[in-house]
Amino acid sequence: MSQLLKVQNFAVSRDGFGAGEHQSLEQPFGHADPQALLGWAGATASWPNRSDPGGTRGLDDYFTRDFTHNIGAEIMGRNKFGPQRGRWPDHDWLGWWGDEPPFHTPVFVLTHHPRPSFTLSDTTFHFVGGDPADVLEEARKAADGKDVRLGGGPTTIREFLDADLVDTMHVAVAPVELGSGVRLWESADELRDRFHLEVVPSPSGVVHHLFWRR
Amino acid sequence: MSQLLKVQNFAVSRDGFGAGEHQSLEQPFGHADPQALLGWAGATASWPNRSDPGGTRGLDDYFTRDFTHNIGAEIMGRNKFGPQRGRWPDHDWLGWWGDEPPFHTPVFVLTHHPRPSFTLSDTTFHFVGGDPADVLEEARKAADGKDVRLGGGPTTIREFLDADLVDTMHVAVAPVELGSGVRLWESADELRDRFHLEVVPSPSGVVHHLFWRR
Repeated sequence: MSQLLKVQNFAVSRDGFGAGEHQSLEQPFGHADPQALLGWAGATASWPNRSDPGGTRGLDDYFTRDFTHNIGAEIMGRNKFGPQRGRWPDHDWLGWWGDEPPFHTPVFVLTHHPRPSFTLSDTTFHFVGGDPADVLEEARKAADGKDVRLGGGPTTIREFLDADLVDTMHVAVAPVELGSGVRLWESADELRDRFHLEVVPSPSGVVHHLFWRR
Repeated sequence: MSQLLKVQNFAVSRDGFGAGEHQSLEQPFGHADPQALLGWAGATASWPNRSDPGGTRGLDDYFTRDFTHNIGAEIMGRNKFGPQRGRWPDHDWLGWWGDEPPFHTPVFVLTHHPRPSFTLSDTTFHFVGGDPADVLEEARKAADGKDVRLGGGPTTIREFLDADLVDTMHVAVAPVELGSGVRLWESADELRDRFHLEVVPSPSGVVHHLFWRR
């Protein structure tokens, strides 16, 4: 089996936004409430940031449990990595995730502005330019035969979709409207010409959208 | 997290039977058509016995993909292992699965009739008597901190349910009626007093039933 490029557990609002407006250090998702978008994932037993032994083990848990399955690298946009724009003022910002990022693989952060790689626990962040196909090539090499996760945000996923590089995509549509922000799509139906699509409502209220290449 | 005992990808008919009548060498599921019970799993990309690179990557694939996740041992009933009953006539029968069984862990086969352990590829079969709690204890030790799969058949699952040893259970109800055979349940509702239950219809026609302890 070849190495897939996979979007996993990516949450959007019912009106198609994957992030709100006005991202800042205090508001990683801008005006969007992270709990409204990702509360379904946080409720599961397999949520990577869970600190107590509880959590649900129904449908949603299959998705959070699958997050690290056969993944050897992640590609993320710079806005997922942090709220800074333009040249790096310094190299103090190490991401939102503290000393134990949930990735456990090399992570390739897309940016036009060079910065040295650094390592936190078993996650190493690299900062790369270039077009999506080149970055994917680099990530595949680092993934050592495993699949590559495309971590978002919405703009980054759009770029890789537009370049026809995405093999499978799981988008959880949350029961919230944002009105504005960074859009993933107008409608999931836009992608039906290139992908199989299964639409699976979860008892939690989100609707899982599962795409794989035709 | 403690070591869970999990039923995974166990298929039953709409009328509650997990196996047909008159199991034999030629008919591992008795009069039940394995394709009717398990065709949903065989269609997925992650089906362990798949020999070509195709297959679906929708909802059902999350279940087959999860089959080996954090599993360190399996417990199965003797009727899952083979069609023989009573004392072993000889030790020639090595299971239905050929030289590469899909388990890749120690497997504990429940039987009152002793037989030496044997290994095929990275699966070792042990033959054990004793009550469910003792067998589970033995399997947990062999699982080296990981979870234990309860592989079936229906009679074995009932025994472990009756002993209140099952932590999570995924049962796929297939769109077929068997009329007779070995029963798992009259209705999934029987278990609601002890388990949370999510009922998730799949586009393939099976209905996934996801149980976890209250």
